[in-house]
Amino acid sequence: MPEQSPLDLPEGDPFGPHNLPYGVFSTADEPDHRRVGVRIGSHVLDAGAAARALGSPYASLLAQPTLNPLLAAGRTVWRDVRRALTAWVTVPAHRGDIEPLLHPLSDVTLHLPYEVADYVDFYSSEHHSTNVGHIFRPDSEPLTPNWKHLPIGYHGRSGTVVVSGTDVVRPSGQRKAPTDPAPVFGPSVKLDIEAEVGFVVGAPSQHGRPVPLADYREHVFGIGLLNDWSARDIQAWEYVPLGPFLGKSFATSVSAWVTPLEALDAARVAPPARDFPLLPYLDDTAEEEPGGYDLRITVTINGQVVAEPPFATMYWTAAQQLAHMTVNGASLRTGDLYGSGTVSGPEVHQRGSLLELTWNGRDALDLPEGKRTFLEDGDEVTLTAWAPGPNGVRVGLGEVTGRIVPAVH
Amino acid sequence: MPEQSPLDLPEGDPFGPHNLPYGVFSTADEPDHRRVGVRIGSHVLDAGAAARALGSPYASLLAQPTLNPLLAAGRTVWRDVRRALTAWVTVPAHRGDIEPLLHPLSDVTLHLPYEVADYVDFYSSEHHSTNVGHIFRPDSEPLTPNWKHLPIGYHGRSGTVVVSGTDVVRPSGQRKAPTDPAPVFGPSVKLDIEAEVGFVVGAPSQHGRPVPLADYREHVFGIGLLNDWSARDIQAWEYVPLGPFLGKSFATSVSAWVTPLEALDAARVAPPARDFPLLPYLDDTAEEEPGGYDLRITVTINGQVVAEPPFATMYWTAAQQLAHMTVNGASLRTGDLYGSGTVSGPEVHQRGSLLELTWNGRDALDLPEGKRTFLEDGDEVTLTAWAPGPNGVRVGLGEVTGRIVPAVH
Repeated sequence: MPEQSPLDLPEGDPFGPHNLPYGVFSTADEPDHRRVGVRIGSHVLDAGAAARALGSPYASLLAQPTLNPLLAAGRTVWRDVRRALTAWVTVPAHRGDIEPLLHPLSDVTLHLPYEVADYVDFYSSEHHSTNVGHIFRPDSEPLTPNWKHLPIGYHGRSGTVVVSGTDVVRPSGQRKAPTDPAPVFGPSVKLDIEAEVGFVVGAPSQHGRPVPLADYREHVFGIGLLNDWSARDIQAWEYVPLGPFLGKSFATSVSAWVTPLEALDAARVAPPARDFPLLPYLDDTAEEEPGGYDLRITVTINGQVVAEPPFATMYWTAAQQLAHMTVNGASLRTGDLYGSGTVSGPEVHQRGSLLELTWNGRDALDLPEGKRTFLEDGDEVTLTAWAPGPNGVRVGLGEVTGRIVPAVH
Repeated sequence: MPEQSPLDLPEGDPFGPHNLPYGVFSTADEPDHRRVGVRIGSHVLDAGAAARALGSPYASLLAQPTLNPLLAAGRTVWRDVRRALTAWVTVPAHRGDIEPLLHPLSDVTLHLPYEVADYVDFYSSEHHSTNVGHIFRPDSEPLTPNWKHLPIGYHGRSGTVVVSGTDVVRPSGQRKAPTDPAPVFGPSVKLDIEAEVGFVVGAPSQHGRPVPLADYREHVFGIGLLNDWSARDIQAWEYVPLGPFLGKSFATSVSAWVTPLEALDAARVAPPARDFPLLPYLDDTAEEEPGGYDLRITVTINGQVVAEPPFATMYWTAAQQLAHMTVNGASLRTGDLYGSGTVSGPEVHQRGSLLELTWNGRDALDLPEGKRTFLEDGDEVTLTAWAPGPNGVRVGLGEVTGRIVPAVH
């Protein structure tokens, strides 16, 4: 009986041919040879080698150490390449060429799949923003007056975006409780996560020219999960008046896999009803496609599920975020990454940060290892997610995981 | 009588051999051939060609389309290259080789000299921050409680950093006066400047490892002027709670020339006395070199001087900013750029923004073309600066200039 092919996936595999996320990998025998891979089941297809073997015109675009050339190529090429890949992994006649180019996931190293240009982080969950407002500004309205008129965002540090699996060193910095006479310095004692979805920009835009809502899919290539690690004590002391800085800039983890938007068509859903009429550049009521995505996220700490944030509850959509980010003429570059903001739903177990889950440390979580308010050294946090795909099959998003290692002294 | 050599500079030329700033240029006959140039007087030396002609080992490092390879090479190489350049433009025996490689500034196009990795903007002038606090938050203390304990900063958009001479399109966006019932959309009516100094990082640092004060010169290569264009109406409506975003991200202009730190040794001065004891990682009282720079900035609008901000008054130094930016383990990359924050002195005519000079539009400036509160389309803003150099000679910083063009409709 012949060995089963890695292309014969179990029914309903979330990484089947309906998904085909892109990443960058290397193998143990050629550790410096980074190249584009496409995930199929629990294997990685060497996409450039497959293109070469099958005479595809995209061989040189795919035999690259980052996704950036593919990202820059634009939507027509993205569609063509995806169509070709789908054929390569599904048409029986290609098996002889393709099977030797499949590597078990356990045999490869996955790398940061794209060079990050600018990184922007939004704040687009009404539930998250309301919770944070209550916690950080108890004497004010939880949502600032601008919140329902524009998707609030800020720039983060792109140089410290790391791929899933990278250890996170506990950051040190200044903190000052309101009752302290002066700030103290030391390792953060309120190290937290933020469960987010990251959007990866492919095609650039012209400086000075806003990108309208309708052009979202001309520019955004795909999505992944994102953990915006946050040191709440550092953040609380530093962030007025110019926003988060060192409380966030030490590390941001992203999935090794970028799922193309085309794999998520069945997951599009309408965003929540808006409470205020929107200015025309943000008004998506007449857009062809609904702007939201029905992504179901799971947050685990040391393997224990602590939250299940529903992305469909996000108030602002990725297309609105893109339109807002460029409405002042700011240009997009290939590799720009923007985060949705922490995803929190209305229920307690749907909150995407420990700040919210423990109400700033008041209500500890019970984990098998003991009580948790914020992260301890050695804790490993993993985000996973899936979305409804075609014919009831799930589309898996690549996980993002990271372990806390002690502060440097 | 032989033609005078471009190397025979007038006495006291601020771009003499004591300065030697680096840039990237191309010529009309080879517009795509960008290469490193060094300014001497009103000429540009093709540095890579000079290195080749004189058998320098740095020919390939200098025959590059950006400064990034030189920046990445580190302080020992920076010193060696500067020593070689100094000899090339001063030793008479080299004239025959060097003179043919000099291009009049008027014949070349200057480009963005380095690829910007992350861009951070600080807020380190006490006078500026106090003025802005009074204007934006009239009911609160002008300086937030953290201001004298840490150099406040935030990340900006590196993809919209442009070289001096690039037109700036007036940004559109949301604004809402406190008396308006809802935000309105349109071209900014409060377009402003911020006169700053930009610091360019050369040598990278390891992720997870803070860069101490004493290592400032191992990492920072040089400085230039920076105009952090700001739309005050957009900024005022958006910036609470996560800081400036679209009010700044449409454009940031930088000098085409980067003056190496070694040219500024005579300009080092002690920063102002600090009002609070600093945490050890920021405490520079025991550092060998004083942390400030005596840079005299001039701001002109359409050729008219409107302000003369003194950089020596800055409360936080560039070394402190670097130490703070990395104390949480955030890494540095070659091409990281950080701005000092708007430079404003204690006097009215020393304020580095129109927000302050006109007190948010209350007190118009009288220009030959008419009254100015904020910038009009067609206005051209230029920052220039000089610093004391060796033997009483001035060190000129490359200007940064930009003209406002109308909003896109």
